Amino acid sequence: MTRRFIAVDWGTTNRRAYVIEDGVVTHTDRDATGILSVPAGGFAAEAAALRERMGGGPMLLAGMVGSNRGWIDAGYVPCPATLETLAAAVARPAPGIAIVPGVKTLEQGRADVMRGEEVQLLGATATGMAPADGLLCQPGTHCKWARMAGGAIDGFATAMTGELFALLRDHALIGAAMTGGVADGTAFRDGVARSAEGDLAAALFGVRPASLLGLRDDADAASYVSGLLIGADCRAQALPGEQVHLLADPTLGALYAAALRTIGAVPVTLDSHDAFVAGIVRLEELIA
Amino acid sequence: MTRRFIAVDWGTTNRRAYVIEDGVVTHTDRDATGILSVPAGGFAAEAAALRERMGGGPMLLAGMVGSNRGWIDAGYVPCPATLETLAAAVARPAPGIAIVPGVKTLEQGRADVMRGEEVQLLGATATGMAPADGLLCQPGTHCKWARMAGGAIDGFATAMTGELFALLRDHALIGAAMTGGVADGTAFRDGVARSAEGDLAAALFGVRPASLLGLRDDADAASYVSGLLIGADCRAQALPGEQVHLLADPTLGALYAAALRTIGAVPVTLDSHDAFVAGIVRLEELIA
Repeated sequence: MTRRFIAVDWGTTNRRAYVIEDGVVTHTDRDATGILSVPAGGFAAEAAALRERMGGGPMLLAGMVGSNRGWIDAGYVPCPATLETLAAAVARPAPGIAIVPGVKTLEQGRADVMRGEEVQLLGATATGMAPADGLLCQPGTHCKWARMAGGAIDGFATAMTGELFALLRDHALIGAAMTGGVADGTAFRDGVARSAEGDLAAALFGVRPASLLGLRDDADAASYVSGLLIGADCRAQALPGEQVHLLADPTLGALYAAALRTIGAVPVTLDSHDAFVAGIVRLEELIA
Repeated sequence: MTRRFIAVDWGTTNRRAYVIEDGVVTHTDRDATGILSVPAGGFAAEAAALRERMGGGPMLLAGMVGSNRGWIDAGYVPCPATLETLAAAVARPAPGIAIVPGVKTLEQGRADVMRGEEVQLLGATATGMAPADGLLCQPGTHCKWARMAGGAIDGFATAMTGELFALLRDHALIGAAMTGGVADGTAFRDGVARSAEGDLAAALFGVRPASLLGLRDDADAASYVSGLLIGADCRAQALPGEQVHLLADPTLGALYAAALRTIGAVPVTLDSHDAFVAGIVRLEELIA
């Protein structure tokens, strides 16, 4: 008999659904029905419609759908967090539907939370894509850096690297110069190198005088700023010589890999969708 | 016979005018006629009106009025910059009116510019308010850090510290928590202490989980973020044990002084208006 369920990575602005049969993805579906587009009280109907569209069956949801802005608040399990502690704490908002909780850390009074990323992290480790002990990175608007120990999420930090980039481009004085695209090249590497100085607020301002004095083409400003921010992020979290497993889309993954190489760390790129599927399949087995 | 002139510190959004007789300020006037409120081609009429209102006489202008968005571009003198090199390069847009140039640095390919701050810096040093060799700081939207050597501006850096604070408060996700005022207290000092980690993008994001997990009152978030940003700025520019002469308004000056003390530096607060007057009086003597 086929073991079949519907896994959903339900985020703030997007949703990705998978039909999984005996551990294999047989159908996927992506839409823009993130939690912000679902009216309060509308999650049961939204989930039922998705379930019908995907052919029915039990559902296992992860991500912001389990936040206080989502269907129900599925809470957070503490570090060290494992697939077992997550499975033991799933919320069940309706028959046949479970929601994975998030993870929190309070290491040395330094609070942090994640919701959705934990499935990828633990999936990557459980399948051996990433080592049981090591540093994993999920670049993005809010970049997660997780320290894995014995296969568990032992601690983590979130950097608002992507959000800072967007704030600067859209609202800062230097944003006027940030009209070009971002690519790995001389300007990006210059930014990564400059981030070694540890004076981010001054390095960022420097975009403007470099433009005024004709020292950098404005077409390169966005790449330079990206290099500064990603470089500072990588230097703060990864040590020279350290292996960093990246769970990222190809574009952002390539930028983080270039920055990590520049500071002497060793990037290893993983497929984040594969990691999610691996994690959610194991979770479904644990809660069945 | 009285030596009389009108000095104007003409910035982007504000303008401050002084009648100076034999080196003493006898009248001051401040309004919101910054350069952005003057239409192209309108500076001659605007200056003439101000001159008449202040009782006539020669005028010496400093600040953004000498930029490419101002009356005429007065250019930049290179570092090391002195009152003498500034005086030798004043622009003369109309009879009896001179504009002080800005200062540029290209130290190690690191471009930076200032326009207006140089009068304060050199005025503070020329009168002995600040030492001929030392570090001066002008906090603000774009905070200037100047290294003085032999009474000259030897090099400087600009940090977009105040602009970053405003961007975060007005546009970032963490801005939702930054509704309280900024004051020197436990939250501000916590931010200064946290800035030692060198992971600004992560420390900033931490405001949100600290709020979600109930670890910090949202009323303290703005002070904490201010402490993070000012702390990071001070650590990047000042050494422990080093004296830093602050040219600042009392509110921002007190925050920088607190941050500098926390990192072991020694703040000395100066009156920025006195410094401007001292500098512009000497410049007027040099160009007479």
